[in-house]
Amino acid sequence: MKTIPIHPSHPSVPAPVDTQGSAYGRAAATSEALITGVGPGTPCGEYLRRYWQPVGVSSEVSTRPARVRILGEDLVLFRDKKGRAGLLYERCMHRGTSLFFGKVEEEGVRCCYHGWLFSVEGHCLNQPCEPEGGKSRVNARQPWYPVEERYGIVFAYMGPPDRRPVLPRYDVLEELNEGEFIEVDGTGYGGYAAPVADPHVPFHWLQNWENIVDPYHVQVLHSTFSGVQFAEGFKVMPKVEFEQVENGVIYRAYRRLDDGREMTRINAAMLPNISAIPSLDLEPTRGRMIGWHLAVDDTTMRVFFAAARTEPGRFAGVRMHNGKLWTEATPQERQDFPGDFEAQASQGRVNLHSDEHLATSDRGIGLLRRMMRQQIQKVADGGDPAGVAFNEEDALVRVRSGNFHLAPVEASA
Amino acid sequence: MKTIPIHPSHPSVPAPVDTQGSAYGRAAATSEALITGVGPGTPCGEYLRRYWQPVGVSSEVSTRPARVRILGEDLVLFRDKKGRAGLLYERCMHRGTSLFFGKVEEEGVRCCYHGWLFSVEGHCLNQPCEPEGGKSRVNARQPWYPVEERYGIVFAYMGPPDRRPVLPRYDVLEELNEGEFIEVDGTGYGGYAAPVADPHVPFHWLQNWENIVDPYHVQVLHSTFSGVQFAEGFKVMPKVEFEQVENGVIYRAYRRLDDGREMTRINAAMLPNISAIPSLDLEPTRGRMIGWHLAVDDTTMRVFFAAARTEPGRFAGVRMHNGKLWTEATPQERQDFPGDFEAQASQGRVNLHSDEHLATSDRGIGLLRRMMRQQIQKVADGGDPAGVAFNEEDALVRVRSGNFHLAPVEASA
Amino acid sequence: MKTIPIHPSHPSVPAPVDTQGSAYGRAAATSEALITGVGPGTPCGEYLRRYWQPVGVSSEVSTRPARVRILGEDLVLFRDKKGRAGLLYERCMHRGTSLFFGKVEEEGVRCCYHGWLFSVEGHCLNQPCEPEGGKSRVNARQPWYPVEERYGIVFAYMGPPDRRPVLPRYDVLEELNEGEFIEVDGTGYGGYAAPVADPHVPFHWLQNWENIVDPYHVQVLHSTFSGVQFAEGFKVMPKVEFEQVENGVIYRAYRRLDDGREMTRINAAMLPNISAIPSLDLEPTRGRMIGWHLAVDDTTMRVFFAAARTEPGRFAGVRMHNGKLWTEATPQERQDFPGDFEAQASQGRVNLHSDEHLATSDRGIGLLRRMMRQQIQKVADGGDPAGVAFNEEDALVRVRSGNFHLAPVEASA
Repeated sequence: MKTIPIHPSHPSVPAPVDTQGSAYGRAAATSEALITGVGPGTPCGEYLRRYWQPVGVSSEVSTRPARVRILGEDLVLFRDKKGRAGLLYERCMHRGTSLFFGKVEEEGVRCCYHGWLFSVEGHCLNQPCEPEGGKSRVNARQPWYPVEERYGIVFAYMGPPDRRPVLPRYDVLEELNEGEFIEVDGTGYGGYAAPVADPHVPFHWLQNWENIVDPYHVQVLHSTFSGVQFAEGFKVMPKVEFEQVENGVIYRAYRRLDDGREMTRINAAMLPNISAIPSLDLEPTRGRMIGWHLAVDDTTMRVFFAAARTEPGRFAGVRMHNGKLWTEATPQERQDFPGDFEAQASQGRVNLHSDEHLATSDRGIGLLRRMMRQQIQKVADGGDPAGVAFNEEDALVRVRSGNFHLAPVEASA
Repeated sequence: MKTIPIHPSHPSVPAPVDTQGSAYGRAAATSEALITGVGPGTPCGEYLRRYWQPVGVSSEVSTRPARVRILGEDLVLFRDKKGRAGLLYERCMHRGTSLFFGKVEEEGVRCCYHGWLFSVEGHCLNQPCEPEGGKSRVNARQPWYPVEERYGIVFAYMGPPDRRPVLPRYDVLEELNEGEFIEVDGTGYGGYAAPVADPHVPFHWLQNWENIVDPYHVQVLHSTFSGVQFAEGFKVMPKVEFEQVENGVIYRAYRRLDDGREMTRINAAMLPNISAIPSLDLEPTRGRMIGWHLAVDDTTMRVFFAAARTEPGRFAGVRMHNGKLWTEATPQERQDFPGDFEAQASQGRVNLHSDEHLATSDRGIGLLRRMMRQQIQKVADGGDPAGVAFNEEDALVRVRSGNFHLAPVEASA
Repeated sequence: MKTIPIHPSHPSVPAPVDTQGSAYGRAAATSEALITGVGPGTPCGEYLRRYWQPVGVSSEVSTRPARVRILGEDLVLFRDKKGRAGLLYERCMHRGTSLFFGKVEEEGVRCCYHGWLFSVEGHCLNQPCEPEGGKSRVNARQPWYPVEERYGIVFAYMGPPDRRPVLPRYDVLEELNEGEFIEVDGTGYGGYAAPVADPHVPFHWLQNWENIVDPYHVQVLHSTFSGVQFAEGFKVMPKVEFEQVENGVIYRAYRRLDDGREMTRINAAMLPNISAIPSLDLEPTRGRMIGWHLAVDDTTMRVFFAAARTEPGRFAGVRMHNGKLWTEATPQERQDFPGDFEAQASQGRVNLHSDEHLATSDRGIGLLRRMMRQQIQKVADGGDPAGVAFNEEDALVRVRSGNFHLAPVEASA
């Protein structure tokens, strides 16, 4: 009889005897409800509804209705044969059949079941099964939201009608030079990930938007951990300065690159869910891309981008170290070389904020959340949130974003 | 610098300025609980349990047990080697193993785990692991429901034993001419849809049954919206008369066809969930098909049909305008040419009745729901609902259904 | 006109008129919450946490982190480059990203998002984005559990640190003869079922563990119902004696085999979830396999086995009567020839104990559950449960298991 070691290649290591820090007995983790709920009537949902939200790419909105889910509401988006985009409550007010199965005509969309016809403003224009085409149809109204199109995107206003602001303009997209145009994408996930068939991303929108004011993860995740996903220059840990501005938070990240150049990268997160991310190649230029990080519902998001370009195809996705697009990576490759999707999706469908330990490098996130709480409270108190404008003159946004040769900032790290 | 239009092909259209009818702030929608719950102990569930319900096609009930879910209850259906059909609670009363894995013998079904043997009435006939084969097995009883077979269908009575009615007969299925037989189908979804592998339909049974007393959707959905799904004659909008009768609701739909013929179509919905739909080809003949629109559970249904025929194969499904069966259609074809399934399934797993706006053409549905509410109340008050009979003489149902050359009705539309 | 029978091959059989035993009106079935909850803070969960639990097979624990779910908790298991196994709370304490996407280094695992580095004890060794690598990182601690390796398995202690017992040894695995070794399996489901790709079994662990003290189902399920799954000898219904011992329940099952041999089989279920199952070939020998029936969560389990062997490959699974492995069987073959998986999985994700009717042959199960309730109460009262030891001398378990030529027992059946 003898006692033998089981795995000689893994010599027995004495178990730790530390009794501190055990995972036993930790409190159940929770999300911060105030800033995460997006549905109708929730504090944050009401705040988000005070801004225009992107709902579709103009060139894709057609006479074939599309289902869209926005802020937890199920709607259908279509373009009538006069060219007007319409956004209606999905369920037909008559008997509840989806207008996704409706047929678009000159004046609106007709429900497949009993043929009620609705205009883009929800007016009922015909009820073919009713006497005289519906004697009281003028009193019928399919729930609807107003839309406007700009930069190749259809925007909707889903808030109280009497608080409707002017649809904003962004200076970097308004001022186009000869040969420039605006390229739009509604299917991708950000710089790292290629467009996918289903644009819905399975986690809370904040996890993606907070990433905008997080310059440090660029050095770790995108540059040293998983290979160079963007540009060699990001391998340098930056010195960072955060600033709260009137409509959001910006950072200035200073780097002395290996080739001797000095570079300050300015990135902006604008209320309520907008980004201005400069070029990922670190070339010195003003950032001319605007992103909208849309809450599909409490646990799902999608991203719309519009960028000034001189050549198309820039939303095709960035390739991994091994030449593959993210959409081509195996599960094993995603584990070994994670990117934004893996980092953010694995925070859960909704991050558990009580588990977090924010540090000095997370100051941008802290500032953003504080602003959100303030604006949510302001809306709950009957006010209008920061960044909304009620006339065209005030609706032009000056975008602070770009890679610049600037003096170094004095800041952390 | 210049500002350019983004999509010249979609000229900018001013946003609507109407502030009425917005989808913002609408009330949360709800279902009518009284008429939608089907589980044990719910008001409507108790009402439905007072009638015999179809549970399987006789020719398919065999010595291999089948799982069936009916009114929210999980049961197993089998035929013992003496030929008796049995319907037992799925979980073995001993330790809970499913009798789906049981083996059928001469006298009943034996559980695979410890061999308890149950008759079609739930009597425990053997407990092989117990002393003397189970000294107290006479006190054991597997929960069971009585079944009867008629028209090639196994029916079960799932209500209180002392209120068990006689299994009804339908005159149109009883009186067979030379060469006629009864054809049965338990896998289809109705006239438009072909049989499918899984007979379960993912929405509430009422959405399907209410369709029976809705003659107008035949003109819209089945004739002018998605091409001719049934017969050319249905393109004529009918004049309709609804009538509440002792056991349900019928309509008479009058049409002057393009070929000069006058035709009145009579359709019947009989309590609690039965239909008599006349021939879909509009040929003048009495309707000789009975349908049972069974509640599988609160959000799932299936349909059983029995019809008098002279030739088989009539349940193979109706072809779309492009020659395809519904089961062969692509998602895009289903959107562009929807049928009953799309119209009813898109009302949701359970329709949201608070969203509805019933009109004059929906009078049949209003009558049916009112009858249901009355009968549910009657059962709750201790009475027997309309249409049940406790002796054979009263159990013969006269079916009012067919396409007839009749004088026009005076009615709406 | 005539009335014809529908299915001549199934002559009409009068419906039963019995009004007793109906499935109508039966009470809603429930599980016994006290013995089924396994999550943090539940009575049974706290009891189970007082014992070391298997969490992985040593040879499979590598520098690539693995997700493991144990007792309802999501954790990551890895081995640092010094060879130490570590079990950490899955969500990085910094911002919640999963450490499954972490990179293992010499000293621990580094989160992909911002590079925090944690040792196997959860100490934070580096915060690269923070000034000076994290001036207050010594105060940071990733929640962790202590692990130890034995018999080729990584065990974790997930209970209160001050109640941590010594990891037990089992005499039958400690005393190896020349040429013997320990073979380990973490992917299978028991003797009948072959290993599968996903080791998670979709039902409550008790359904599997109770099977250990159920000698009768071996005669029915494994020998006469579905063909001989183990050995011909099991076709004999045994005489059985159950005994409650200090750390669980054993049975002695006596059989006079067809070849004249007398055989007593001894099987042990040891608290809290351990088994000692003797050889399935009924050859007279001591049982030298230990099993751990792990609660993954309230509705999922998996099994780890360690056995003393002289040749490998014994965990490849037992073949069905038709030569197929269980994993190769069709759904129809699983219905017709069910095994342990079908019997136990069909009890539901959690068995409904209020539905059960335990009989004399279920005495072992009754004893086990009573012991569980007692030990759960003891832990709730502040005590230590049966079978835990706090020094090495007491931690050697004498295993009672085997097939022996013994005098017949005097017992039931």
